[in-house]
Amino acid sequence: MRAVVMYAPGDVRVDETERPTIVEPTDAIVKLAATCICGSDLWPYRGADDVDHQPMGHEYVGVVEEIGSDVTSIALGDFVVGSFFSSDNTCEICRAGYQTHCVHRGPGAVPGAQAEYARIPLADGTLVATPAMPDEDLIPSLLAASDVLGTGWFAAVAAEAGPGKTVAVVGDGAVGLLGVLAAEQLGAERIIAMSRHPDRQALARDFGATDVVEERGAAGVQRVKELTGGLGAHSTIEAVGTQESMTQAIRATRAGGHVGYVGVSHDVSLPGEELFFSGVHLHGGPAPVRRFLPELVRLVWDREIDPGKVFDLTLPLERAAEGYQAMDERRATKVLLTF
Amino acid sequence: MRAVVMYAPGDVRVDETERPTIVEPTDAIVKLAATCICGSDLWPYRGADDVDHQPMGHEYVGVVEEIGSDVTSIALGDFVVGSFFSSDNTCEICRAGYQTHCVHRGPGAVPGAQAEYARIPLADGTLVATPAMPDEDLIPSLLAASDVLGTGWFAAVAAEAGPGKTVAVVGDGAVGLLGVLAAEQLGAERIIAMSRHPDRQALARDFGATDVVEERGAAGVQRVKELTGGLGAHSTIEAVGTQESMTQAIRATRAGGHVGYVGVSHDVSLPGEELFFSGVHLHGGPAPVRRFLPELVRLVWDREIDPGKVFDLTLPLERAAEGYQAMDERRATKVLLTF
Repeated sequence: MRAVVMYAPGDVRVDETERPTIVEPTDAIVKLAATCICGSDLWPYRGADDVDHQPMGHEYVGVVEEIGSDVTSIALGDFVVGSFFSSDNTCEICRAGYQTHCVHRGPGAVPGAQAEYARIPLADGTLVATPAMPDEDLIPSLLAASDVLGTGWFAAVAAEAGPGKTVAVVGDGAVGLLGVLAAEQLGAERIIAMSRHPDRQALARDFGATDVVEERGAAGVQRVKELTGGLGAHSTIEAVGTQESMTQAIRATRAGGHVGYVGVSHDVSLPGEELFFSGVHLHGGPAPVRRFLPELVRLVWDREIDPGKVFDLTLPLERAAEGYQAMDERRATKVLLTF
Repeated sequence: MRAVVMYAPGDVRVDETERPTIVEPTDAIVKLAATCICGSDLWPYRGADDVDHQPMGHEYVGVVEEIGSDVTSIALGDFVVGSFFSSDNTCEICRAGYQTHCVHRGPGAVPGAQAEYARIPLADGTLVATPAMPDEDLIPSLLAASDVLGTGWFAAVAAEAGPGKTVAVVGDGAVGLLGVLAAEQLGAERIIAMSRHPDRQALARDFGATDVVEERGAAGVQRVKELTGGLGAHSTIEAVGTQESMTQAIRATRAGGHVGYVGVSHDVSLPGEELFFSGVHLHGGPAPVRRFLPELVRLVWDREIDPGKVFDLTLPLERAAEGYQAMDERRATKVLLTF
């Protein structure tokens, strides 16, 4: 089968690789309907994470082609969406809603999903089947649920976005934009998108942003305070993962407010004293997408939300390298790869 | 009047100073019934915070002797307990329960309360009157409510201690011990006190600890995990404020669990990546004691709790220096100063 492999930073190729097969009796093999490139794939692409001939991709939707002998809730032919982390969804941690930390999870995200087929461990606890075969136009939105929508949703929940709340969103990538969508769905009163890119500002407004702040750093914090009576946001979504973005998120939040951070943390160090005197709540990490998937699939299925709009470039899998380049240069927010 | 002044690290004296007078119309002057030394007073005593002829003390109970012209809810002759931070208790931040961050608060904790009299700003929003003049034996417990009980209580609330939860407590000072008491009052199922001092272990058990862990650092984390099916505590109270204690608290907590940290942070730096992948909630800071004071005063008044037990050394104010020394050398958990 064809699969995207990152040979080294900046060097993405499409190779002919072995089609995966069932290894554990809890596995499923999914024939992907589409896949995509994640903002987090840019960390190794830019050399910020080590990479050496790595099969890429952890977002997927498609049809179940094979199941292990222990799989009971997913059937051959099901159209499924899965979380980017596998989970048994039965352990104590999963039951508490933290499937990303499932005691039986693998060592990291589901690997190698920028490919025609993917092996999904713990299929019963990881995959959610759609009610029927989806219309073609729903596929991007269902794919978004696999990670970026689920991650933005978790950030909004971690930030306790809801009625009466002003939510600030740091980061205008796909996750930040879908954090806006999530905050809107959760009933936030006001949503401040922090972005200086007109296209992304427009999409943020489409998803429910009521205000846009172009300033960054201290000036950005200052603008959020001006918009919130000097107090700061009740809830802030952090969707970048750098020292600057975390600092901006913490400082933009009022005492007693909540920061939901989902940008994969890179070289971040939080000064204890500032955090202590900030009085904010901090919660985040790799999103337990599985917690939210049934609801997210329903919202997409019923066409109540259209998170697939974050895909602003569609390429055939063969041209994955172009997709990485476009995202790296911020010419694309998120790239859909088709077969 | 007599007042405790820290001239320099390790140099504590009792001076004759000016009795405070009303400065703002919202002030009250309180004649203290007792005062005490706080664990946080040891930071400057040990040279970890700058200090230069600083009037000490921020915990107080006593009788209102004078009020400003704008004070309406506190009357002359009232016996009052106050939070160690003044607050108007009416601003949006106060109403959300974060009185320590009141938009009208002073620059820091109430100063100079290790003295015969104290000036309390924003008396209406800071002080809580008891139903009547308390019996003498209730004074230590009412005084504890002013900071250490309120702080331990906030830590337990921030850690979401409650029914069905296992709570670990890092730190066996007065705040940690009262965090145990708070967790018990909040209905925690199991409370693991981390302490290697037999006296403090005994008091922790008296306050409701079900388990004691003597190990620290990685070994302490390991013990908490062994006691919690490998998962870690649901809730962890951090009541020290060092890198080691914060690390221990975060690592002792399961993914999705809550760390409530109230130890005044000193030279702490939290690595973003570890925090990200821990999946814990983090909340803390200077405790908004005022939020809890009415309930805490009631519990003490009704003799449902006896937080005054944390005072294991009582000295006249004149001998404050001995009290600092005893706490510094950990010969005393908390020192009550009488007049």
